[in-house]
Amino acid sequence: MLFMLHIDLTVPHHFTPEQTNDLRQRENAHALELIQQGTLLRIWRVVGTHSNYSLWSASTLEVLHATLAGLPMFPYLKIQVNPLIDHPLATACTSAA
Amino acid sequence: MLFMLHIDLTVPHHFTPEQTNDLRQRENAHALELIQQGTLLRIWRVVGTHSNYSLWSASTLEVLHATLAGLPMFPYLKIQVNPLIDHPLATACTSAA
Amino acid sequence: MLFMLHIDLTVPHHFTPEQTNDLRQRENAHALELIQQGTLLRIWRVVGTHSNYSLWSASTLEVLHATLAGLPMFPYLKIQVNPLIDHPLATACTSAA
Amino acid sequence: MLFMLHIDLTVPHHFTPEQTNDLRQRENAHALELIQQGTLLRIWRVVGTHSNYSLWSASTLEVLHATLAGLPMFPYLKIQVNPLIDHPLATACTSAA
Amino acid sequence: MLFMLHIDLTVPHHFTPEQTNDLRQRENAHALELIQQGTLLRIWRVVGTHSNYSLWSASTLEVLHATLAGLPMFPYLKIQVNPLIDHPLATACTSAA
Amino acid sequence: MLFMLHIDLTVPHHFTPEQTNDLRQRENAHALELIQQGTLLRIWRVVGTHSNYSLWSASTLEVLHATLAGLPMFPYLKIQVNPLIDHPLATACTSAA
Amino acid sequence: MLFMLHIDLTVPHHFTPEQTNDLRQRENAHALELIQQGTLLRIWRVVGTHSNYSLWSASTLEVLHATLAGLPMFPYLKIQVNPLIDHPLATACTSAA
Amino acid sequence: MLFMLHIDLTVPHHFTPEQTNDLRQRENAHALELIQQGTLLRIWRVVGTHSNYSLWSASTLEVLHATLAGLPMFPYLKIQVNPLIDHPLATACTSAA
Amino acid sequence: MLFMLHIDLTVPHHFTPEQTNDLRQRENAHALELIQQGTLLRIWRVVGTHSNYSLWSASTLEVLHATLAGLPMFPYLKIQVNPLIDHPLATACTSAA
Amino acid sequence: MLFMLHIDLTVPHHFTPEQTNDLRQRENAHALELIQQGTLLRIWRVVGTHSNYSLWSASTLEVLHATLAGLPMFPYLKIQVNPLIDHPLATACTSAA
Repeated sequence: MLFMLHIDLTVPHHFTPEQTNDLRQRENAHALELIQQGTLLRIWRVVGTHSNYSLWSASTLEVLHATLAGLPMFPYLKIQVNPLIDHPLATACTSAA
Repeated sequence: MLFMLHIDLTVPHHFTPEQTNDLRQRENAHALELIQQGTLLRIWRVVGTHSNYSLWSASTLEVLHATLAGLPMFPYLKIQVNPLIDHPLATACTSAA
Repeated sequence: MLFMLHIDLTVPHHFTPEQTNDLRQRENAHALELIQQGTLLRIWRVVGTHSNYSLWSASTLEVLHATLAGLPMFPYLKIQVNPLIDHPLATACTSAA
Repeated sequence: MLFMLHIDLTVPHHFTPEQTNDLRQRENAHALELIQQGTLLRIWRVVGTHSNYSLWSASTLEVLHATLAGLPMFPYLKIQVNPLIDHPLATACTSAA
Repeated sequence: MLFMLHIDLTVPHHFTPEQTNDLRQRENAHALELIQQGTLLRIWRVVGTHSNYSLWSASTLEVLHATLAGLPMFPYLKIQVNPLIDHPLATACTSAA
Repeated sequence: MLFMLHIDLTVPHHFTPEQTNDLRQRENAHALELIQQGTLLRIWRVVGTHSNYSLWSASTLEVLHATLAGLPMFPYLKIQVNPLIDHPLATACTSAA
Repeated sequence: MLFMLHIDLTVPHHFTPEQTNDLRQRENAHALELIQQGTLLRIWRVVGTHSNYSLWSASTLEVLHATLAGLPMFPYLKIQVNPLIDHPLATACTSAA
Repeated sequence: MLFMLHIDLTVPHHFTPEQTNDLRQRENAHALELIQQGTLLRIWRVVGTHSNYSLWSASTLEVLHATLAGLPMFPYLKIQVNPLIDHPLATACTSAA
Repeated sequence: MLFMLHIDLTVPHHFTPEQTNDLRQRENAHALELIQQGTLLRIWRVVGTHSNYSLWSASTLEVLHATLAGLPMFPYLKIQVNPLIDHPLATACTSAA
Repeated sequence: MLFMLHIDLTVPHHFTPEQTNDLRQRENAHALELIQQGTLLRIWRVVGTHSNYSLWSASTLEVLHATLAGLPMFPYLKIQVNPLIDHPLATACTSAA
């Protein structure tokens, strides 16, 4: 199953640069594992913002939630989950790629 | 350049089923051409809605606008254009794919 | 998989009472089939409104979308899909029931 | 009487992990009692968020308010209360279950 | 049980003055019955608008919904239902009245 | 003149329980005086929230503002003031009461 | 008593220019009477819009509502009523004028 | 040129009463000067709120901005600037006053 | 004086293509005059939408309003007027150009 | 490529005047470089607010994002990026200038 997520990050203003950097490094390391597992398929940054769009694959909703709740930045994220299906034109996209 | 679009379709209620079907067929034929040209890269339907997310590639903003304005359904679409860049983790995504 | 849907119905004002009644009967007959298939688990009306909450089970997102898009009232519905997982307290709920 | 609640939790960022854990444990213990009393009928977590939907039964509005105001997390909750009635199709749901 | 309702009326622009008057008369006659039954306790118009606040008493949510759905203007109303309980100061209000 | 007020209370999270209790006691004592003066006619709590609806009588807008600005909780309140007139059906309400 | 009103006008698109002109002339004639009575004190147009701000004086809320409901354009207006009191600096304004 | 401003004040909760009073006194003294200069023409408080409407005259936009940015409370204000022109009925208002 | 306008166009769905084209041609001819007069300084289309940003110069607010109200498309436009002043860095922009 | 940005600045209330001044100076120095590079073309302040509109040129979306993320005030900015194309009337604007 596919999900498009829109994620907004709000790092608390009272964080020191060290805390922010540490959080970011742990987040990236964790995300890298999710990519290698095939859970996090793609991720794009929205220009000029602290937001991103990302495409996730998960076999169940329980797996998706556990994955997101395990992100080091989870307490600071606002996540919108859009369940997706292939558009009727999706096959054409794949064969064109 | 990459763009994530969120598109909502509102077909006027007074359309006959024939008008709706005709519009839909012309839209799909047009979209197919855009896929084959490499302009429309991916398209997903949001479950339970008349909305979709789609990923577009365009060499210039002029090309992107002309492409969207040329869609047969353009007068009935509400389009939100999100300019994207690769997330620092994008390379990992590609090599994992 | 479970989904909580919030659905708003807007019947066009120009519908005749006969059209509205016919639509309603076809919708109910269709919903009854979905209940018997175990797809539509529960449905509640929000007091004083034309909205309802409903709990759905679907094996895949494709099945869920096809089911919703097949509703006779689909063109007149605004559907919000909330993917759900069991809360840690869910087992207690079930054993208390 | 039935009520569908949508609850958003915002734990203050200055809470220590110990304070958060303690709050969570007291909330869960309290919720367990409400389940055993038949007040809290069902509870689902919305995937990827700190929100949940829950179905409550209360004999009066006074009982419902007193129950919610007694939750240890009440000062940190944003609660939307939707009064519900059975949908005309509810009987079919129950007999199908 | 008490409920505060905020109701917005939108009469379709294509109604003739006769249709509007007829609707208004049937609505008022119906509301008068609800007042005499003790269901509709108080009603106030919000200055300068087509909205009103009203205070309702109903023994069950089913009765409240059936009452509202039976209003001749129901298809043209946007109703927000606020379940109420007495404020701790309510007794003082009553004895002061 | 009558006014329906919708009031939301947000006690700052850094308040100690003693500060909150003290504030609440002063607010209630003050409100009690307003009830006895016939300024605050009725007050209802919205179930599950920190909000209330209340009905006020004031001879002038200056009196109403001075009364509200004098509430001990005024700095923490978000107040929406709805000027009301009797609905054409109001007489029926009163005679039915 | 003083009130600041923000009024948005939406003339239905299906009106003929004659209907629109006729409505506008009746509205202006009516407003002129209200000005001469001292009810409508000032009126300003918001640049580039179909909205205006206006300052009204009314001895009671009933008079204000009856006045607004009597405007020929009332069915096409969205009116926001802001009850006002003199700011502590108002006297300085008047004596400076 | 005329401008209608809607201004919301949010004094930070951590201000001491002394800080708030001092700020208020400096704001009032400054506003008084602006009144005497003919820049701030009228000011009204919105009943029950920390907001006000005010009417300003400025020969240029630069003067208006410099004036507002010079207010001691400027960092705590949310200002909405509505450029105004005289309504066609304005002359009648003036001659009636 | 400078103003940044954000304009949304909504052509009614019942317009024929001829009506739409005629409207568009008259709008463009009119806009061309405004450009030649130095009133409309710049205009940009927002990619993928029926909206545009435009920069206007007007000696008074009356001139600006009369100009906008004279646009053939004015009844179908939603216009947001932002009064602007030069940013402290504006001189650097000009000399860099 | 052209982009219209709407930027809102929220300096944290706990900043000392020295911190705010230092931030502002670094921001201005940085913006000056961007102007000299031809990246930041124009910038206007919205009257009475802490917001501005600005026109940017960037050869790629990556360059635009890197530029914005490098602003000293970036953590305190809310940026809305509007991709622009020339309006059909743009040539007339340029030749009129």
